[in-house]
Amino acid sequence: MSARAGIVVTGTEVLTGRVVDRNGPWLADRLLELGVELAHNVIVGDRPADVEAALGWLASHGVDLIVTSGGLGPTEDDLTAQVVGEFQGREMALDEEVEGKIAEILRPLAARFPNPDMDAVREANRKQAIVPVGATVLDPVGTAPGLVVPPAANSGPTVVVLPGPPRELQPMWKAAVATDAFRSAISGAHVYETRMLRLFGIPESEIAETLRRAREAEVDIDDLEITTCMRRGEIEVVTRYEPEQAAVYRAFEDLVRERHRDTLFSDDRTTVDEQVAGMLRERGWTIATAESCTGGLLAARITDPAGASDYFPGGVVVYDRAAKEELGVSPATLDAHGEVSVETAREMAERVRERRGAEIGVAITGIAGPGGGTPSKPVGFVCFSAVGPDGAITRSPILPGARFDVRDRSTTVAMHLVRRLLLGEHD
Amino acid sequence: MSARAGIVVTGTEVLTGRVVDRNGPWLADRLLELGVELAHNVIVGDRPADVEAALGWLASHGVDLIVTSGGLGPTEDDLTAQVVGEFQGREMALDEEVEGKIAEILRPLAARFPNPDMDAVREANRKQAIVPVGATVLDPVGTAPGLVVPPAANSGPTVVVLPGPPRELQPMWKAAVATDAFRSAISGAHVYETRMLRLFGIPESEIAETLRRAREAEVDIDDLEITTCMRRGEIEVVTRYEPEQAAVYRAFEDLVRERHRDTLFSDDRTTVDEQVAGMLRERGWTIATAESCTGGLLAARITDPAGASDYFPGGVVVYDRAAKEELGVSPATLDAHGEVSVETAREMAERVRERRGAEIGVAITGIAGPGGGTPSKPVGFVCFSAVGPDGAITRSPILPGARFDVRDRSTTVAMHLVRRLLLGEHD
Repeated sequence: MSARAGIVVTGTEVLTGRVVDRNGPWLADRLLELGVELAHNVIVGDRPADVEAALGWLASHGVDLIVTSGGLGPTEDDLTAQVVGEFQGREMALDEEVEGKIAEILRPLAARFPNPDMDAVREANRKQAIVPVGATVLDPVGTAPGLVVPPAANSGPTVVVLPGPPRELQPMWKAAVATDAFRSAISGAHVYETRMLRLFGIPESEIAETLRRAREAEVDIDDLEITTCMRRGEIEVVTRYEPEQAAVYRAFEDLVRERHRDTLFSDDRTTVDEQVAGMLRERGWTIATAESCTGGLLAARITDPAGASDYFPGGVVVYDRAAKEELGVSPATLDAHGEVSVETAREMAERVRERRGAEIGVAITGIAGPGGGTPSKPVGFVCFSAVGPDGAITRSPILPGARFDVRDRSTTVAMHLVRRLLLGEHD
Repeated sequence: MSARAGIVVTGTEVLTGRVVDRNGPWLADRLLELGVELAHNVIVGDRPADVEAALGWLASHGVDLIVTSGGLGPTEDDLTAQVVGEFQGREMALDEEVEGKIAEILRPLAARFPNPDMDAVREANRKQAIVPVGATVLDPVGTAPGLVVPPAANSGPTVVVLPGPPRELQPMWKAAVATDAFRSAISGAHVYETRMLRLFGIPESEIAETLRRAREAEVDIDDLEITTCMRRGEIEVVTRYEPEQAAVYRAFEDLVRERHRDTLFSDDRTTVDEQVAGMLRERGWTIATAESCTGGLLAARITDPAGASDYFPGGVVVYDRAAKEELGVSPATLDAHGEVSVETAREMAERVRERRGAEIGVAITGIAGPGGGTPSKPVGFVCFSAVGPDGAITRSPILPGARFDVRDRSTTVAMHLVRRLLLGEHD
């Protein structure tokens, strides 16, 4: 037997596509880690009847757990707590302890406004403190408390009610998982082990071939639940298995390691970005970027995590020929090989490395499309160079997809070249 | 009476959050334009039973139209066409015309591989040509045909079956809408007018105040369906109304124009990015970027549309002090005002403008957080400068949110400063 769950994301802005939902995917990952199978993710507007319909449908589907996000704010159309309370057959009552906590949180916020209408603030505060009787209340991260609401009757799913902003939902999830009500709702869940292997530089069909060979080698992979997928150009192989199948999993992982020694880069959920940042920090090295077709996306990716200033002094976006020349790429190289060439990429990387006084320079120049392709340099043809103190790596693959995909994928290729360079590879 | 619809996005990769769904939000916008109300968006895995359950739930909800995306590929687990056919009570049969069209499409693709297994290709081809009898077939954009499948019985929703890749789904949508089966399914839909106003630089509460004043002025806005939302720092006011309410809408729009003259920037669905690109093209001007905290995101945003090379020569990412000095920001300015200051932003913009020989230079330097804030320059404090031939605009707002939000919002502020500069404003 295993536990199943559903997700209900509420919010007219999400339903109508004005805001991209980041909670559904994040919760899906967390449920997977817990060994809970995700049945459906329903996105509904802010109407109570629609939220209730989604709860009813998931319950009729026999799920053990429903997680909702959104609709916990102080305004009148934030109704998730009440809808869930009614759905679970529980009365709503003011929780004075919660009211006090929210008041504590609101005090410094209210002080920022010159003449706050304290009655209105207290009213809104009180609304958020009205919770279903018998629910476990999760302390607010923003101003809204979360809830774990078991059914009043003996059967039916437990509903976990979380706020919409990801920076509130994510910390609150941990508290939700720790509650007795949550634990007991998913008690049917197998304790699964989950492992993730990440590979870069091979097509998905190569993994299919590896599975075939595992069967040939009589590794009983049918006792494992293996899913593979491409994400931003990398392959993720996620395997879920019961603890007693650990030996089977080890045999499978050994086979992957053996066949894909050169392309397996992560077995501990670290991303290539984290690995590169970690190696740069460890050595006290810095990295500088020179980009053409990606237009700054690589620098933006490198500076996405906080603290990137420890290893990133800066970069250049040399979109036209004059900018490339001003960086120091020689006109002779540009004339002989063109702006999109491994030679130009190499000089871009070397020049930006010198300019920024960095240990590593990395460069991208390519044809992102939709226009600009030629038979010898079609759309998707992208040249990369990563130059370090002891050598360089240069590549020029043809990347699939449209402009968006080519640009995004290019940043992934560049990160992997830098990783290889940091591990001591050169051309 | 109005028409209602539901969306079913299929795909385990989307459900588990490995791939971000771009189809649900896009379809939601299209349905809104048609005056069709979107009830729910359900994301399901690839299991036929789950797809069928989602169809059944939406049908029981009384929707007139269901749109599915995904599951039309050539492999065995692509089963949407078959599940929908059965759900609609229709037999499946090989459509030889469709088979021929797919063969045409596959021929050049197959030619790229040295020894294609033509039997396997033909087999996969045939699978995609097996369609529900009585369905309208939509010509493939990739290799998969789409379908519009009315119910065999007299009642129930019509199901539109579209492929998963957005670049196939989006062109095929038009063909779907043009079919008789589609038209007749949404015949209950009111013909609505939809207008969108975009504003930048005011809080959402200002729009609430405008609505209040409209009521005071006896503009009967209850005859309009007005929704407002924040998207990436901008406010979108979408109004849907029946044609006979056009005069009421005009009165409302006039009021918005009057109260928000300075912040209303779009009434024709154009984005600020499109407006800036259009004005640059029209004048034959170019723009160069100098970024610190945004780390290249602004340059990446400017180069997102194809053809950006017409007006973007390049930019710099000057993340540390040395990079700012090398760009030409004077050490005296950095000493006196700091790296994050309007003075530094102004010099960054001027220097990159000169370097790239551009008409406009735009610069961003700020504290994206989570660390690095001080009482006088807290996290979210960002300095902007846009410099043109006739003057400059400089701003230093405190932007809300976490690191990701501050960086993203900063690119929006910068685009709007450039827009204002292009319209002739200066400090």
